[in-house]
Amino acid sequence: MKNKRKTIAIDMDGVIADVEAQLIDWYHRDHGILISKEDMLGKPEPEAFPNKEAVLKFLHTPGFFRTLPVMPNAVEVVKELMNDYDIYIVTAAMEFPLSLYEKYEWLQEHFPFISWKNIIMCGDKSIIDTDYLIDDHIKNLDFCKGRPIMFNAGHNSNVSHHQRVHNWDEVKALFNNIKNLSETTAV
Amino acid sequence: MKNKRKTIAIDMDGVIADVEAQLIDWYHRDHGILISKEDMLGKPEPEAFPNKEAVLKFLHTPGFFRTLPVMPNAVEVVKELMNDYDIYIVTAAMEFPLSLYEKYEWLQEHFPFISWKNIIMCGDKSIIDTDYLIDDHIKNLDFCKGRPIMFNAGHNSNVSHHQRVHNWDEVKALFNNIKNLSETTAV
Repeated sequence: MKNKRKTIAIDMDGVIADVEAQLIDWYHRDHGILISKEDMLGKPEPEAFPNKEAVLKFLHTPGFFRTLPVMPNAVEVVKELMNDYDIYIVTAAMEFPLSLYEKYEWLQEHFPFISWKNIIMCGDKSIIDTDYLIDDHIKNLDFCKGRPIMFNAGHNSNVSHHQRVHNWDEVKALFNNIKNLSETTAV
Repeated sequence: MKNKRKTIAIDMDGVIADVEAQLIDWYHRDHGILISKEDMLGKPEPEAFPNKEAVLKFLHTPGFFRTLPVMPNAVEVVKELMNDYDIYIVTAAMEFPLSLYEKYEWLQEHFPFISWKNIIMCGDKSIIDTDYLIDDHIKNLDFCKGRPIMFNAGHNSNVSHHQRVHNWDEVKALFNNIKNLSETTAV
């Protein structure tokens, strides 16, 4: 008998959508100062920039979330994971309510193979129950009901109590390991 | 020691927002035919109207979700429940993506005391894990992880396998009973 498919919740910002890259890009465009990914290590995103109010303003600017670059290989790996798992996109969009529809459109453009049934826009994620959560924020990972997987970001560089993946290739490798392990133990 | 507060997920459409009333009202306004709540018993909402395409069109009309009437006494009872429970508003908004921001604004207007952290707009509700779910749709109630409470609606009038509440006064009475029972058994 086939087991019930396991579920993975995947965060948007900082996981499939590259917020850091867009902040660096917009800050350079508007203020002429190029911040590096290294400058962002160990602090909340806005703190890495000389004018943090300007960064907070970006987050409330129409179009910011709509035009985020896709994280490298995210599309391919998510598509592959869908063969074995039920995938849910779970994003804390409610903090920026104007982003709700932008995030929906962004997903339609870049992840059209994900059904509207599998999209969740929320505030905190404490009542989300999936077998895995891939997220960059410890405020979500610390309280998740399943197995937390921390996607690397400047702001979480000092965190060591969650399994870290640096990119989508590492996500793919991790789930390949999990699959191999479960096939071995299922004999 | 105080126990961890229990959680209640509350649906929007048909539970705190009166979709039936708005459909009846708009259909009467645009087509001159007055459908009664009795006409709506035992069928999906659009099926209760002579022209069901017109009803489906309402659901995609800007302003429909923004102007839904509040279900009688919902505000008062939800506010009271917040004394004892963590309340989450969980709505299947993703089916009507244009409604996302309207639903947010509607909540800001009528339930301003509910934090953005406690609002969840989703597709299916299968990964939502709360102790109780108050909802009018069996597709949600049948698969919820907590205790299902079915809010009365025309379309669920034939369903008998969930505990039914007819209005918010009955929700209040039900949770008063639960509270009294837990205080008795906790002695």
